[in-house]
Amino acid sequence: MLNFSLMGAGRIGKMHAKFIAAHPKAKLKYIYDVNSQFAEEVAKSTGCSIASSPEEAISADDVDAVLIASATPTHTQFITMAAKAGKAIFCEKPIDLDINKVNECMENIKGINVPIQIGFNRRFDASHAKAQQARIKKEIGELEMVVITSRDPEPPGIDYFLDTAMFILKSKKGVLIHINNSRRAVYGYDQRVEVFGSKGMVISNNQTPTSLERYTSTSTNEKEPIHFFFIERYEQAYRDQFNEFVKCVEDKTKPLVGFEDGRNALIIANAAYESFESGKVIDIKF
Amino acid sequence: MLNFSLMGAGRIGKMHAKFIAAHPKAKLKYIYDVNSQFAEEVAKSTGCSIASSPEEAISADDVDAVLIASATPTHTQFITMAAKAGKAIFCEKPIDLDINKVNECMENIKGINVPIQIGFNRRFDASHAKAQQARIKKEIGELEMVVITSRDPEPPGIDYFLDTAMFILKSKKGVLIHINNSRRAVYGYDQRVEVFGSKGMVISNNQTPTSLERYTSTSTNEKEPIHFFFIERYEQAYRDQFNEFVKCVEDKTKPLVGFEDGRNALIIANAAYESFESGKVIDIKF
Amino acid sequence: MLNFSLMGAGRIGKMHAKFIAAHPKAKLKYIYDVNSQFAEEVAKSTGCSIASSPEEAISADDVDAVLIASATPTHTQFITMAAKAGKAIFCEKPIDLDINKVNECMENIKGINVPIQIGFNRRFDASHAKAQQARIKKEIGELEMVVITSRDPEPPGIDYFLDTAMFILKSKKGVLIHINNSRRAVYGYDQRVEVFGSKGMVISNNQTPTSLERYTSTSTNEKEPIHFFFIERYEQAYRDQFNEFVKCVEDKTKPLVGFEDGRNALIIANAAYESFESGKVIDIKF
Amino acid sequence: MLNFSLMGAGRIGKMHAKFIAAHPKAKLKYIYDVNSQFAEEVAKSTGCSIASSPEEAISADDVDAVLIASATPTHTQFITMAAKAGKAIFCEKPIDLDINKVNECMENIKGINVPIQIGFNRRFDASHAKAQQARIKKEIGELEMVVITSRDPEPPGIDYFLDTAMFILKSKKGVLIHINNSRRAVYGYDQRVEVFGSKGMVISNNQTPTSLERYTSTSTNEKEPIHFFFIERYEQAYRDQFNEFVKCVEDKTKPLVGFEDGRNALIIANAAYESFESGKVIDIKF
Repeated sequence: MLNFSLMGAGRIGKMHAKFIAAHPKAKLKYIYDVNSQFAEEVAKSTGCSIASSPEEAISADDVDAVLIASATPTHTQFITMAAKAGKAIFCEKPIDLDINKVNECMENIKGINVPIQIGFNRRFDASHAKAQQARIKKEIGELEMVVITSRDPEPPGIDYFLDTAMFILKSKKGVLIHINNSRRAVYGYDQRVEVFGSKGMVISNNQTPTSLERYTSTSTNEKEPIHFFFIERYEQAYRDQFNEFVKCVEDKTKPLVGFEDGRNALIIANAAYESFESGKVIDIKF
Repeated sequence: MLNFSLMGAGRIGKMHAKFIAAHPKAKLKYIYDVNSQFAEEVAKSTGCSIASSPEEAISADDVDAVLIASATPTHTQFITMAAKAGKAIFCEKPIDLDINKVNECMENIKGINVPIQIGFNRRFDASHAKAQQARIKKEIGELEMVVITSRDPEPPGIDYFLDTAMFILKSKKGVLIHINNSRRAVYGYDQRVEVFGSKGMVISNNQTPTSLERYTSTSTNEKEPIHFFFIERYEQAYRDQFNEFVKCVEDKTKPLVGFEDGRNALIIANAAYESFESGKVIDIKF
Repeated sequence: MLNFSLMGAGRIGKMHAKFIAAHPKAKLKYIYDVNSQFAEEVAKSTGCSIASSPEEAISADDVDAVLIASATPTHTQFITMAAKAGKAIFCEKPIDLDINKVNECMENIKGINVPIQIGFNRRFDASHAKAQQARIKKEIGELEMVVITSRDPEPPGIDYFLDTAMFILKSKKGVLIHINNSRRAVYGYDQRVEVFGSKGMVISNNQTPTSLERYTSTSTNEKEPIHFFFIERYEQAYRDQFNEFVKCVEDKTKPLVGFEDGRNALIIANAAYESFESGKVIDIKF
Repeated sequence: MLNFSLMGAGRIGKMHAKFIAAHPKAKLKYIYDVNSQFAEEVAKSTGCSIASSPEEAISADDVDAVLIASATPTHTQFITMAAKAGKAIFCEKPIDLDINKVNECMENIKGINVPIQIGFNRRFDASHAKAQQARIKKEIGELEMVVITSRDPEPPGIDYFLDTAMFILKSKKGVLIHINNSRRAVYGYDQRVEVFGSKGMVISNNQTPTSLERYTSTSTNEKEPIHFFFIERYEQAYRDQFNEFVKCVEDKTKPLVGFEDGRNALIIANAAYESFESGKVIDIKF
């Protein structure tokens, strides 16, 4: 049994509280949120205790793991505290928007050997994962191109992605990667990954809530809009991600997505931004 | 809070045990199964008690509702017992394969006013339900034809459907309905409903486990096989059906799918069989 | 070079005139139509002569082949005349709507060895033909079921199909075949063939005029209506059918679709009608 | 009647010879090709005369229009000759690979008022054209992004596209455009255009030769490879493009795709190349 403290009781925090409650080998012991009403809601629905401070939640003796779903600026601080307290850590992405804070955190926890998993939920999506496997198993031969579409129907929040943007990345081996982003996809949460190689292509395509198709005098094959919110589209991926974390901690194996992956994502995002500002190709060094 | 007795701890029974356990307003009190090992498995995973007889499970004072997922021949007996004990009843389909037993049961429970829901899970599937709504709201104009494909990848079990079969039904208003069944669909659990009217058509189409598409030198648009088992394809429908039952009992409203619907389905199946045997059109009278 | 007389200069006749004109090994010599204006239009666009009677068109010495696209009731008479004149014959479907006239025609031309092809254009459609090949090559294993959807957006004309209708046929080997027809498909000319066997299924699906897909705030994957008229949907099939006829005559091989196929189609249609009227299963004997 | 001289009798030239022959208002008078065998093939199949020199073909008094489908380096010379001879001009793309030669040609023909159309066949494709119209009519609201996939199954020839390449263009109004190219698409001639705006998206998607779908124990929805060669995929577009040229000359209207469009395409291609070489954003000035 893995006892959890949950940091943050907002939309994402509540989703994690549900996963912890549903998992046969996990138990939510403490919830902490600066907003006491949110914390009370989680406490009421799960029966956990409300911690009066981050320290109390993170350092509690009867806690094995800390799940960090609080506001982004608190992440590095909570990671550091949890690592020093010897707890297993699951932290929502991004680690931070400031690479200096991420590097400082990395320094602070150097040498501490606790499992750390960063919340890259898309990697646990069954369709995206099958595309990834097709690449790894060379079903599509040698990888040559990747085209990623990631468009959102929501108004922009505080995030490290630009509003409407396009990027090209080139890997050391010469693989070309295109990413396009938008925050104004009126038809839903458009999430596609196209992986192209010397022997073929796989596409992890969009998913509509139902499989209904309409045929009228003006159109055919009409489906419903794609899922509108990321929690609907990726709920199963979020759940599988959490289950994987519990399994890694129990089996004492290294999580598939670690601190370094989270740091690398920020380095890439920063390079994209620098390229956009300077109009130049930027070398990325991890 | 709705306290349940569950009759039957096989594959379907275990699925229902899970739904009862996961529902915030439901609690599993007793499990009964002639196979004591099955009963123990459910008792262990849910913490419920094992009833030593059907009577004990059904008549217990601390039980509000009976969920019948035992072998088909026991259904009418358990429905009658539960109705006489004043319990709300959810019974898996079919009520029975013998119309005489169904009619006798109907007589026995006549005048007893308890909620009874029959487990027609497909009606709770989001895609099929949207097709149904399109018909009711006349989005497709006047209904003219329905084509139902229901094919299974599993070897035939004891069921009231023929192996490979085709039917045509004609409603009183002249709507034509075609149903085709097979137990040898190697590509998965093929479940399609096509509803055609004067202003258009809606199709509730198949669903693949992921949205991956493959493109190779010999083929394009290739998807995975459809879900293979009915519990995979309809798990959400089974869950929504159970949630609806709990809601009906709590709200004291009539379940959407009652005893009569279950009886009518058997009358239609019998007519199909009679038509098959005699080579004649059969009049169906409910 | 194959010299043609064309009987009938209506919509279908004009289409055939175009195919004859475009074929490098065919030449249109005579057109005959009771409507002299129609005949003049074809003569003007192709440079052929106008025959003053069916006899003149059919018996002309410089004519090798007769293409019959006139009104259905004239078909058997023209087939008989052309056969007796020793001409190769292409006749549009149906041969006739009266089986007695078809049988009489069969008697009259018995022993005359000229190529006769009946215009079953669907058999020359590339998609339907690939489905047929998949069946013949046992790609789908043993054939078990066929589901044919044939719906039309046009108001009913004089034809041998019922308006809205459903049929089930059973072959000697036990294969089940379902056909459904409508004349009120507002979304276009809906033509699907689904062939199901022990190792899988092939579907010859619908075709939209373009591959455009629309995504809006209310729908996704929306395509245009399917082709609306049979000449649009099957133009290439009609062309390939004509080319095949020319090839058969030149190569002295038997056409793929002969008089007997046309007669069998009528026998099946009559049996369907009789079944509909009597409410009974009808044995079909060819 | 529009009399044509055709320059070039290779694969593309032969396709154009066929279109000229099939057009009711066009006639092929002369063919010229440095390869006399090719010229003879066209002369034989169409009945046209063989010109002994470009001058003879282009300057002939009985010629109204010159169709240039010869090797790229001859294009500017033939355009200049034809313009000076007062002939209408259709020239295959590209005008030339050297912007200096294109500019020189532009100077040489300045002030000469003959219709010039450059062979941008994709613009005449019905699906791409519908996507374009959806943009122009603001069906998708304000244009924000375009994603163009143009991949080829053929080994690279002499062309002005790079082998495997990705580009991003930004219009003056801020619209972002991504193009990706490959010459190693084993699954066929992959040609997709995705147009995204504030009110939705349209996709001009790929087209398979037939509408057959396969369902087996290992896969579903499997279609055939996409058309493999550009003439198969775009034959109708090539034909419509030619018909449009004849119509423009007859109606004395300006062709939709003129010399300037051809020049602009080269300027964009050069900028892409310069950006690739320098790793910098390049300003494009037309």
